[in-house]
Amino acid sequence: MTAEHRRRGGIEGRRVARATAPIVQKRYITRKIPIYELVSPEGIELLHETSMIILEEIGIDFRDEPALAAWRQAGADIRGQRVRIPRALLMEKLALAPAEYTQHARNPERSVVIGGRNTVFAPTYGPPFVRDFENRRRYGTLEDLQNFVKLAYMTPNLHHSGGVICEPVDVPVPKRHLDIVYSHMRLSDKPFMGIVTAEERAEDCVALCRILFGDAFIDAGNTVMTSVVNCNSPLVWDATMLSALRVYARNNQAVLVTPFIMAGAMSPASTAGSIAQLNAEVTAGIAYAQLVRPGSPMVYGNFVTTVSMQSGAPMMGTPEPAMMIYATAQLARRYKLPVRTGGMLNGSKIADAQAAYESVQTMIPTLMAGTNFVLHSAGWLEAGLAAGYGKFMLDADQIAMLQQFAEGLDLSEESIAMEAIREVGPGGHYLGCAHTQRNFQTAFYTSTIADNNSYEQWEAEGAKDANARATERAVKILAAYEPPPIDEGVDEALRDFIRRRKAVLPDGVT
Amino acid sequence: MTAEHRRRGGIEGRRVARATAPIVQKRYITRKIPIYELVSPEGIELLHETSMIILEEIGIDFRDEPALAAWRQAGADIRGQRVRIPRALLMEKLALAPAEYTQHARNPERSVVIGGRNTVFAPTYGPPFVRDFENRRRYGTLEDLQNFVKLAYMTPNLHHSGGVICEPVDVPVPKRHLDIVYSHMRLSDKPFMGIVTAEERAEDCVALCRILFGDAFIDAGNTVMTSVVNCNSPLVWDATMLSALRVYARNNQAVLVTPFIMAGAMSPASTAGSIAQLNAEVTAGIAYAQLVRPGSPMVYGNFVTTVSMQSGAPMMGTPEPAMMIYATAQLARRYKLPVRTGGMLNGSKIADAQAAYESVQTMIPTLMAGTNFVLHSAGWLEAGLAAGYGKFMLDADQIAMLQQFAEGLDLSEESIAMEAIREVGPGGHYLGCAHTQRNFQTAFYTSTIADNNSYEQWEAEGAKDANARATERAVKILAAYEPPPIDEGVDEALRDFIRRRKAVLPDGVT
Repeated sequence: MTAEHRRRGGIEGRRVARATAPIVQKRYITRKIPIYELVSPEGIELLHETSMIILEEIGIDFRDEPALAAWRQAGADIRGQRVRIPRALLMEKLALAPAEYTQHARNPERSVVIGGRNTVFAPTYGPPFVRDFENRRRYGTLEDLQNFVKLAYMTPNLHHSGGVICEPVDVPVPKRHLDIVYSHMRLSDKPFMGIVTAEERAEDCVALCRILFGDAFIDAGNTVMTSVVNCNSPLVWDATMLSALRVYARNNQAVLVTPFIMAGAMSPASTAGSIAQLNAEVTAGIAYAQLVRPGSPMVYGNFVTTVSMQSGAPMMGTPEPAMMIYATAQLARRYKLPVRTGGMLNGSKIADAQAAYESVQTMIPTLMAGTNFVLHSAGWLEAGLAAGYGKFMLDADQIAMLQQFAEGLDLSEESIAMEAIREVGPGGHYLGCAHTQRNFQTAFYTSTIADNNSYEQWEAEGAKDANARATERAVKILAAYEPPPIDEGVDEALRDFIRRRKAVLPDGVT
Repeated sequence: MTAEHRRRGGIEGRRVARATAPIVQKRYITRKIPIYELVSPEGIELLHETSMIILEEIGIDFRDEPALAAWRQAGADIRGQRVRIPRALLMEKLALAPAEYTQHARNPERSVVIGGRNTVFAPTYGPPFVRDFENRRRYGTLEDLQNFVKLAYMTPNLHHSGGVICEPVDVPVPKRHLDIVYSHMRLSDKPFMGIVTAEERAEDCVALCRILFGDAFIDAGNTVMTSVVNCNSPLVWDATMLSALRVYARNNQAVLVTPFIMAGAMSPASTAGSIAQLNAEVTAGIAYAQLVRPGSPMVYGNFVTTVSMQSGAPMMGTPEPAMMIYATAQLARRYKLPVRTGGMLNGSKIADAQAAYESVQTMIPTLMAGTNFVLHSAGWLEAGLAAGYGKFMLDADQIAMLQQFAEGLDLSEESIAMEAIREVGPGGHYLGCAHTQRNFQTAFYTSTIADNNSYEQWEAEGAKDANARATERAVKILAAYEPPPIDEGVDEALRDFIRRRKAVLPDGVT
């Protein structure tokens, strides 16, 4: 085999082999590596204590009558919409939330257990724009959303299909939730999220799940959605979010109870103060869900950025959000709650070095902190305003590496490889030895996108940057997509429900 | 103040303020955060035990007569060039190496303590190419090397000036070491590295340091250089490296004793086996340095990549090198030795997303592992074949963030900010409150390169990627460079020595 043959034929051959290889889905991560505890136990207690004082002395607004009534009945101190919660009451309610729960997928092999030593990766959520196959920025469409659902389905290390991977702006807002949820149900068999933009939309999501999973399965209390609601920081839970939370809690469906914090604007211009405030917000939200349905599965959520005091722009991938990720994960463990934080966050407009630096500076802390549910694990750009096809594939490659890292160091006899070291000896090489022959295909992670070839070869192949190669890969993967099977009767029932709902829902928001 | 004014005037004003701000050098890092211990104590003992068996039973080649003689005298088992080292002998010699040492800079404020909880960042080392101000790839020159020395001098978070930041290819090889070391001595006042490519060049470096620091200072055993030698893995120390190591050890100058491993080719196709082998190589090298001069400061070094079994290309930023970084740092601590590993390693040809992902996937483990000396902290591209001006500035920004992170979470009363949370209350905002006024300038890290502005503003400013902005910043910083003062007599003596050496050294390698 000549060098030239090895270069051309070998690499081309490998590429063909990879492109046609069946996708082997990865089970959600069960971390075998230690958690990184950034903050001392005393520090965590100080943050907890501060949050308790906030809830007891300052209080938190629940701008929603049913929630105020529930808190009043539970014994909290209510003045207007302000709720002051004694710590004993708060802790008693928090203790009702499960430390982990199973979110069922329609394919039982894709069900995920959220909590404990597990980490589940889900794609990005919420961007109105996409950066498309031509690397142009434009509004997202239903076709884009469906492309992303397909890509998530075909990405072995995305254990969860997510929700609004991008906004399908071509679908009227009041009907959008139906198309989004149906796309996940039909085009993937991984677990997914419900919609929270209105109470009736949350109800529609539950109704669709009743069709997909059957009434009995839902009535038995099985969790089949993990949705996300945001607190209006500082210290306000509003009626829209609470009404959606209530629908899901009542049906024993999980919610990522998530303050969305731009520290310095929505929380103090300091890291510790921001953590203490968001901890008060999350715990109050989860405690309220327990008033709705004791034992309903709720995730300690947070999404943290800092704000540039000069421009007002959010900043990500910087040291303070990383510290907040570590500290909030520790607080969640203190309360024995699953935790959602982090993701591939960045403020870059394109999938360039800034995007990658900031994403990994967020994502490694996310994994090392012991995060259980990671929204925005693939595709995020522009502070969440855009989902990129190239960025999605680049991130998918990175989370595959993190999943491999979470396996920890293999210390088996085969990995110690004493036999190979003896065989090769000083001055030899390992390329042909028996141990290498046995192990070379799995020994080391090989990226699907990174170019590690010679400069000359890279140039001959068009001198493409990583985003260009990744975008090409997205196109290839999509071309190979085949939908998972679904019961035709169920599918027809889903589509019938959606037709009927769309017939009565308005096209505009009034 | 209108929004437009705030946007344009504010941002422009901030940029001007930053460009003209005096550079405040950062002291080397003394980590206040916990170290991440990836491997269990039992795992570390297993790796150690394997290394001891390698050195006792397989042995390691020292292809150098003085080294063989020294090992023979010390009681090792010598057959040909193969040295088998009983573990008692090895551990006795390792114990002589100091756990930490001070490397003096000519400006005492820039001296660094290497070891313990400290981390010192040094720029990239060795690339023959540069990616220049026009983002073109070409051979490096002395002017490039000097530009990088100036940039390192002006980068607050590079605590060390490094060595061959790029190869000055326009200077004949036998004379190159003189120009390189003089550039560091004259254009910076930070600590630097010596040259190891030949015994006489190492001697020249010591001679230059005797002029710069004075004979008495050197004779008193003060360390003023930290150089780097590589093991020829597997298990060979060659005469060139050993002769340079000997010069430095004899003069009590520090060396990063570093196997350069492409796992799968130069070590087994497994992570644990690669660690065990390199641990044998490092410890044998450091033990030998103790035969030369007991107590000479030596750093447990390693540089690890994996090799693609399909293309033979090195791979970086992947999970296995990260595990090797953590494990080798743990082994170094077991032997009470300072450790060098990691850096901003990547295989990308340009400063794109691949470069950034891989760099941070290497660099965060580097910091979290408790690494003491980090070569290649800024500028590295193309598996070490190129140094990039843009990459240098991008990395400089990232290591500033890591240094901030290493400060840990501030839990002071001011950071807890209870007063601000009370003042603002539910539904308010923190932008104008007294606590924010006091803290906004230092509360959150603000990148010098990241663009977090609106899409529209970014587009109006040319839609530049991060590397383009970073390269522009390198040009600006260089334009503001002023050399640190130096005693004119010393400078003349350095230049005189170099003139005399150049007169007798050949222009070509024979």
